[in-house]
Amino acid sequence: MSRLDSFIRRLTAQRDILDHVCADVAKMDGPVLELGLGNGRTYDHLRERLPARRIVAFDRAFAAHRNSAPAAEDLVLGEIRETAAGFIGIDAALVHVDIGTGYDDRDAVTITWLPDLTARLLRQGGIAVSGLPLDHPQLQPLALPPSVRAGRYFLYRRA
Amino acid sequence: MSRLDSFIRRLTAQRDILDHVCADVAKMDGPVLELGLGNGRTYDHLRERLPARRIVAFDRAFAAHRNSAPAAEDLVLGEIRETAAGFIGIDAALVHVDIGTGYDDRDAVTITWLPDLTARLLRQGGIAVSGLPLDHPQLQPLALPPSVRAGRYFLYRRA
Repeated sequence: MSRLDSFIRRLTAQRDILDHVCADVAKMDGPVLELGLGNGRTYDHLRERLPARRIVAFDRAFAAHRNSAPAAEDLVLGEIRETAAGFIGIDAALVHVDIGTGYDDRDAVTITWLPDLTARLLRQGGIAVSGLPLDHPQLQPLALPPSVRAGRYFLYRRA
Repeated sequence: MSRLDSFIRRLTAQRDILDHVCADVAKMDGPVLELGLGNGRTYDHLRERLPARRIVAFDRAFAAHRNSAPAAEDLVLGEIRETAAGFIGIDAALVHVDIGTGYDDRDAVTITWLPDLTARLLRQGGIAVSGLPLDHPQLQPLALPPSVRAGRYFLYRRA
């Protein structure tokens, strides 16, 4: 499979999982955290699906389209591992995190710290949607929507 | 429609159009030109679909995944408008160009020069696949595959 095919499948999986959980998230209190704003396309999707919800976006540096720029108070720039740690205890209803690089060695480092950070950002019962696996005792894998093949994108609920 | 939904549709249209024309391109002599290498996902797709063909990739700066890096002799860095002009007359069988920015004002400038450049890079009967419309007397619009809605991605044959 080409990297283009793989990318289309990964983005579709991301979108389908977010659509699958948004009704559940809408019933919970707590902000949404977008770790890895990038171009801002997924931020735009979350904003559309959860219109009244505060969404805080994190990225190393601002690289989003101007139509997907969060308000200044909801944009946190700098190393995500460090900046997001300042939000531990915020009791997020949803953390979406798409910070994989496509390089196995770099991603292996990321998943040494990302699962615990994500668990500590979420409220009890909160949802994590991730491009990288989040292996953590407090994050319980949830069933994926039927369109998404196992291992393509990841979905958890915080115990 | 969210920007994520729109992006998935645009990438799918790009992939479906390229798959649609590759059999035709395979029967023609001439290199493939990829204007706007980016992450290299589409370069990887073209390489998979046209395995024996020379593919020359252009970008302002190198930003591709290392698995999608062209050989040094097939990678041209610098302002695409200027660097690609040096290849006029190369008689390309296929030019794929995805250099839209998502900003209407910038893209409006691009389409003042891109159609003529593309026409001059192609051989007679060669194919142009583009994310921006290429309005040019020598570029005849071709029917899109059924999965692609008009205006989502563009397909031409050089007269």
